[in-house]
Amino acid sequence: MKNFQFYNPVRILFGKGQIASVTQQIPVGAKVLVTYGGGSIRHNGVYDQVKAALQGFTTVEFGGIEANPHYETLMRAVALARTEQIDFILAVGGGSVLDGTKFIAAAIPFAGEDPWDILSRKAKIASAVPFGAVLTLPATGSEMNSGSVITRVSTQEKLAFSSPLTFPKFSVLDPETCFTLPPRQIANGIADAFTHVLEQYLTYSINTPLQDRLAEAVLLTLLEEGPKVLANPTDYDAMANFMWSATNALNGTLAAGVITDWSTHYVAHELTALHGIDHARTLAIVLPAMLRYRRAGKLQKLVQYGQRVWNITTGTDEERAEAAVQATVRFFESLDIKTRLSDYEVGPDTIQHIVQRFTERGVKNLGERADLQIADIEKILTLSL
Amino acid sequence: MKNFQFYNPVRILFGKGQIASVTQQIPVGAKVLVTYGGGSIRHNGVYDQVKAALQGFTTVEFGGIEANPHYETLMRAVALARTEQIDFILAVGGGSVLDGTKFIAAAIPFAGEDPWDILSRKAKIASAVPFGAVLTLPATGSEMNSGSVITRVSTQEKLAFSSPLTFPKFSVLDPETCFTLPPRQIANGIADAFTHVLEQYLTYSINTPLQDRLAEAVLLTLLEEGPKVLANPTDYDAMANFMWSATNALNGTLAAGVITDWSTHYVAHELTALHGIDHARTLAIVLPAMLRYRRAGKLQKLVQYGQRVWNITTGTDEERAEAAVQATVRFFESLDIKTRLSDYEVGPDTIQHIVQRFTERGVKNLGERADLQIADIEKILTLSL
Repeated sequence: MKNFQFYNPVRILFGKGQIASVTQQIPVGAKVLVTYGGGSIRHNGVYDQVKAALQGFTTVEFGGIEANPHYETLMRAVALARTEQIDFILAVGGGSVLDGTKFIAAAIPFAGEDPWDILSRKAKIASAVPFGAVLTLPATGSEMNSGSVITRVSTQEKLAFSSPLTFPKFSVLDPETCFTLPPRQIANGIADAFTHVLEQYLTYSINTPLQDRLAEAVLLTLLEEGPKVLANPTDYDAMANFMWSATNALNGTLAAGVITDWSTHYVAHELTALHGIDHARTLAIVLPAMLRYRRAGKLQKLVQYGQRVWNITTGTDEERAEAAVQATVRFFESLDIKTRLSDYEVGPDTIQHIVQRFTERGVKNLGERADLQIADIEKILTLSL
Repeated sequence: MKNFQFYNPVRILFGKGQIASVTQQIPVGAKVLVTYGGGSIRHNGVYDQVKAALQGFTTVEFGGIEANPHYETLMRAVALARTEQIDFILAVGGGSVLDGTKFIAAAIPFAGEDPWDILSRKAKIASAVPFGAVLTLPATGSEMNSGSVITRVSTQEKLAFSSPLTFPKFSVLDPETCFTLPPRQIANGIADAFTHVLEQYLTYSINTPLQDRLAEAVLLTLLEEGPKVLANPTDYDAMANFMWSATNALNGTLAAGVITDWSTHYVAHELTALHGIDHARTLAIVLPAMLRYRRAGKLQKLVQYGQRVWNITTGTDEERAEAAVQATVRFFESLDIKTRLSDYEVGPDTIQHIVQRFTERGVKNLGERADLQIADIEKILTLSL
């Protein structure tokens, strides 16, 4: 096992009716900025529940945070929050609203010249406005971690940051808030969470049997409960199991002490940045090719994944690994998520564009062995065509 | 899934050489009380590492905290800490030192008349002295939770408390500190952690497949790694896997949203209080009889446990449940832990003594269905003879 530090102070408030409890979690007298997305919360009752819970607090609202939240949008929220001198932020939405809120929270008191430096130069954050969340879409795990991914439209860049200061103080997870989600978003959430686990699991073994089994626990539960949620999004138990699985997929537990990869995410972000393809779908495009291209280095784990998650018990190791990748592809496709660039009308020119960007950025040594170079990424993307 | 709140702010510092990092975790200028047990840390190098890490801090020491830490001993530490006006406590040892330190931390600023009320009357704690831990014995999970069990010698009582204020600020888990543990303590640790998981898992199902699989992940890893540690306590990987499993067995993750039991612990505590039998051994005595007596109410989970943990796949449900209990007993016995009261020269008079105490205390409605009464406990203990 690798040495590790684990720290996750997020308070989870899980279950029916828990939105009301945010009243006890926000400091008395705080002026609260409520951030949200496209307005779906106005139609599904969540907005009303949040407003009811915030009676007694002065609130300011900032809506319109889009999927793959835009730096340009978020900087308008930062300006508003500075003008209004808000004390606390309550994010109401999915991973994009949460990620955007983390950036807003960090950018408000940012002392440097340009808050974009938090993303582009990994500028150190000295403080952040405290914030909580009401999650309405299980997917990214942002509700129980300190990470955030932000897109700058003007430069078509999608970059990540994290800080010990950008953990939510609390996150409300009420499965009932997800009953009205469209199938596309549910499917994306399942695929996103599933890939989060795989990026922490499909590397090479350093003798971490507990973490392996914890990862397999989340994978098996997503496989089992995901289709139930898609078939019946008002099945409370299935939604609860999916929601808690997505949170556990990326709250730090699975990564503690193990070797992680994240190159699929790194490459996939470019497809969203350049073409606006849903994040989860970009993962489903890149992952299979990534696993096939790097099969030798991941062989032992691919075989274990095939056996424990997909019950693949015959064939050579190479055959089992390929069967495991095929099973993963079939799972994505069963969610109505296409897994090839051509399905999204993306061609070789985009691959060249990504190669050029990575070259400019000086990208090198990605992956769990730090041996993945731009030339490899070009080949992987070509396999994804 | 049940509604739940999950909150665990303990920072885990895991791995070789991590004791040195406590320097960064304790507030600069703090006067530190170092608490420890019988002195084994002086022989295995841990004491020296801790002293080196605490250079630059003023320290006061309090050793001699015994197994099943005594209220009487701990109150002497409280008096010392008050006199010395300490700011922080560093617990160095196993679960007993940690549990004792939690009580010390809570009792120092306790405003009530008698700190014993924290245990006997669940008196509310308004503040606690901050503390951290260097764990030297994987077993109780105390390093990553807020619970504590204290024994009062004068009255032969063993009682528990917990508070959001008694989470360690950090816990160092360096598997190398465990290399010199005697086999008896390792065996106890394995059995203790194993039973912690079972008390959160062997109840009745409310459709929580993720939590079930997380519990099974810890059980399977303890089964696999425990014997390796016993055979070779300097096997770093095995010790690391055991250590992290024991922490995960009782850090709140497995209990989130599920039905838990804890009646085995409640009853077993009496055997330690009256006869000083090792905590883990009292669990191994009570658990099998508890599971057999309550088989009907736990049947579905016992069958699942048998299948997923012990690979028991044939027979009626009742036969499978019994086979699962037998496998559990064999596992405890394989650790050289005896599972009957008679093995410890305890007879029916002790059962009557426990019945009398529970009657005086007005104990009723224990277990996951709140249907376990004193008469049932008498029968269960009789089955354990």
